[in-house]
Amino acid sequence: MQNFTYCNPVKIVFGKNTIAKINELVEPGAKVLLTYGGGSIKKNGVYRQVKNALKKRKIVEFGGIEPNPTYETCIKAIRLGRKEKINFILAVGGGSVLDGSKFIAAGIPYKGKDPWDIIKSRGQSVKSAIPMGTVLTLPATGSEMNTFAVISKLSTTEKLAFGSPHTYPKFSILDPLTTYSLDKKQLRNGIVDAFVHVAEEYATVDLNTPLQDRYAEAIFKTLVDIAPAVMSGKKDYDARATFMWTATQALCGLLSCGVIGDWSTHGIGHELTAFFGLAHAETLAIVLPAIWKYKINNKAAKLAKLAQNVYGVRTGSTKQKAAAAIKNTIKFFHSIGMPTSFKDYGITQKETEKVVARFAQRGDVLGENGDIDAKAVRKILKLGL
Amino acid sequence: MQNFTYCNPVKIVFGKNTIAKINELVEPGAKVLLTYGGGSIKKNGVYRQVKNALKKRKIVEFGGIEPNPTYETCIKAIRLGRKEKINFILAVGGGSVLDGSKFIAAGIPYKGKDPWDIIKSRGQSVKSAIPMGTVLTLPATGSEMNTFAVISKLSTTEKLAFGSPHTYPKFSILDPLTTYSLDKKQLRNGIVDAFVHVAEEYATVDLNTPLQDRYAEAIFKTLVDIAPAVMSGKKDYDARATFMWTATQALCGLLSCGVIGDWSTHGIGHELTAFFGLAHAETLAIVLPAIWKYKINNKAAKLAKLAQNVYGVRTGSTKQKAAAAIKNTIKFFHSIGMPTSFKDYGITQKETEKVVARFAQRGDVLGENGDIDAKAVRKILKLGL
Repeated sequence: MQNFTYCNPVKIVFGKNTIAKINELVEPGAKVLLTYGGGSIKKNGVYRQVKNALKKRKIVEFGGIEPNPTYETCIKAIRLGRKEKINFILAVGGGSVLDGSKFIAAGIPYKGKDPWDIIKSRGQSVKSAIPMGTVLTLPATGSEMNTFAVISKLSTTEKLAFGSPHTYPKFSILDPLTTYSLDKKQLRNGIVDAFVHVAEEYATVDLNTPLQDRYAEAIFKTLVDIAPAVMSGKKDYDARATFMWTATQALCGLLSCGVIGDWSTHGIGHELTAFFGLAHAETLAIVLPAIWKYKINNKAAKLAKLAQNVYGVRTGSTKQKAAAAIKNTIKFFHSIGMPTSFKDYGITQKETEKVVARFAQRGDVLGENGDIDAKAVRKILKLGL
Repeated sequence: MQNFTYCNPVKIVFGKNTIAKINELVEPGAKVLLTYGGGSIKKNGVYRQVKNALKKRKIVEFGGIEPNPTYETCIKAIRLGRKEKINFILAVGGGSVLDGSKFIAAGIPYKGKDPWDIIKSRGQSVKSAIPMGTVLTLPATGSEMNTFAVISKLSTTEKLAFGSPHTYPKFSILDPLTTYSLDKKQLRNGIVDAFVHVAEEYATVDLNTPLQDRYAEAIFKTLVDIAPAVMSGKKDYDARATFMWTATQALCGLLSCGVIGDWSTHGIGHELTAFFGLAHAETLAIVLPAIWKYKINNKAAKLAKLAQNVYGVRTGSTKQKAAAAIKNTIKFFHSIGMPTSFKDYGITQKETEKVVARFAQRGDVLGENGDIDAKAVRKILKLGL
C-alpha cells in the first residue's frame, strides 16, 4: 500500500424528502446564487422544493448550465455573482451543474485576470472559493462528494479537470426521489460513469490493497445487480437509493487511498466529448474496454480479480479471466443500452486522428504507468472502432 | 435504506514515516498538551519522533492514561490543560489514549460544574472542544476517525460512551510501522474489536442496503484473511497497513449509513469491563456469539449472508447458515487466541448477576429492536458461560 492522505469533509444529507433541510444548512442571512441546468428541475418539482426551503433568503438565479459545462457560460455566472455580491452558491442538478458551480465558486473570488487559469493550473491557483451546497438530481459523477470539476472551453475545444480542497461542497443533499424523472439515457450514463470511476481506481497496478479492492468490487457488484431495477424505469425507491449512494461512493476518494489510479479512460474520453460531442459516459464506454484490451498484460492481475469477484468467473488462466472481465463488462454496458464502439456513433478512424494529434501536440502521457502517449492513444482508439 | 446524515472531516495521514508530518499539521504557535499512556511510546521510538516533529512548540506532557481511561485520570489532565492554557491536544497511543483525550478536549472548555456531565449527556452538553490531533499506535477502536470515546468512572464502576461533532480529531496519523512493537494480545484484541464494530452495524435488520453490506463483508473478509500474517508477529508491512486501515474503516461511520445498528454487545461488554476488568475486546468476544445465539431468529437473514459471503458457506437453510456464521466466528476468534467464554476467565454465573442487576436498575433496553432488557441480558450472559 502506498502512503496517502484522505480527508473528505462533505456533509451528506441522504434520503426521502431531505431537500427541506436546506433551511438548516444555509445561513439565514446568506445571499444565494442558485445555479441549475436546462430547467428540468422546474418540471419535476425540485425547483419549487428548493425555493420553499430557502424561505426569505435573497436569491440570484443562474440557469442554463449545459451538459459538459462551458467556460463561456460559467464566466457569465462569475460576473453575475461578483456584481450581486453573493456569498453562497446552491447548485441544483447533475454533475454538470455541480462542476460548473465549483468553477463559479472558485472563479468569483479569483484575483487573476482570467479564471480559465484555475483550470489550466488544475486547481493549484485556487486560494479560496465561495461556500457551496448541492442538491443532486442525477447519480453519476460523484461531484457532490469530491473537489473535482470538468470544464469545457468552446473557443479552443478543450475539456479539462480541476480540483482544490476549497471546492468541496459544504453539504450535498441526495434525495433518491429526485431521480424518478430521469430518462433511460441519463440512468444508463450514470451507471457507466460510476462503474468507470471505480475501474480507474481498481484496474491498475496491484499494490496489495485488499480492503480497497473489496470496496471497489462491492461497488461494481452493486451496480451490476441493481442495473435492471434502475433501468426498468420503475419508482423503486431502494434501487434508486442504492444507485445514488453507490455513484457518490465511486468517486469520493476512498477507493484511491493507497493505490495508483489510471484515469487514461477519462483523459481520452474528455477529448472525445470535446471533438465529437459524445456524452461523458458514452466516451468512457468506448475507451475503457479498448484500454483494457490494449493493456491486458499489465492489468491482468486486477482484471482477473474483477472477473472472479464481480462476474463469478471461476475457471481459466489469469489472462483468460482478464479477457472474460473485458467481455463481461462490454456485455454489461450493452445490457443497459450503452454502445461501446465508435461505429455506433458513425465516427471513423480518420476522425479520431484529431484526438491523437491533440495528445501528440500536448505531449501528455497517461495511465498508471505513465506510458500512454499519442501513439498508444492511436492504438487504443483503433480498438474502439 | 433509511435516511441518514454522514460527515467525517478527519484528515487521515497514512503510511510509513508520517509522524514527521505533525510539523505541517499543528499550528507553529500552538501550546500542545501531549497525552499518552503507560510509556510504551518511549520504548518504541514513537515519543522521540513526535517530540522531534513538534520542534520548538511549547509542550505540556500528560502521560499515564490507562486502558479503559478513567474520569479520575482525565480530570487531572483537564485541570492541567486549563492551568497551562493549552490550545491543542496531541494524543499519542491506542484507543484508550485517544478516548481519554477526547474527554479532556471537551472537558477543558466545559462550563458546567463537573465534566462527568458530558458523559452522562452522551456528549449532548459539549458546546466546544480543544482541537486535537492523534498519532495512532494500536489499530482497534477506530477512535482516530470518529467522535466517540468511552470513559470509566472508578468511583461508581461505570463505563459509558459519549460523542460530539466537536470531538472529531482534526487529523490522525496512521503509521503502520508503529504497530511492530505490539504484543499478540494487543493485536488479537484489535482484530476482534474491529470485527465486532462491523458486526454491530451489519448483523441487524435487513433494510436492503447492498452496498453497505458489501463494505461490511469486505472488512470482515479482510480481517479474517490478514489475521494469520498479523498474528505471526512478523514485520509484514502490507499486512499491518491493511490491518490499520481496516480497523479505522470499521468504525468511521460509513457502514452505519442508512442502517440500524445493534450495539448491544458493546452495551453489555462495557459493564463486563467495569465489573471484572476484562479488556474491551475480551468482553466483545464473549458477548457477540452469545447475542447471536440468543437472537438467531431475528438476525438469521444477515447472519446467513455473513456465512455465505465471508466464510464461504454455500449449503443449508437460512437458519443453518446463520448457525454456521456463529460457529465460524467463534472458530476465527479462537484461531487468534481469543477466548469466547466466561469460564476462560473463571467468571461464574452468579458473578454475572451484577451486570443483570445494573441493567434492571437502569431500565435500559438494547439492540436494533430495543428488546434486550435485563431479563434478556441474563439469558445472553448464560449463553456466554
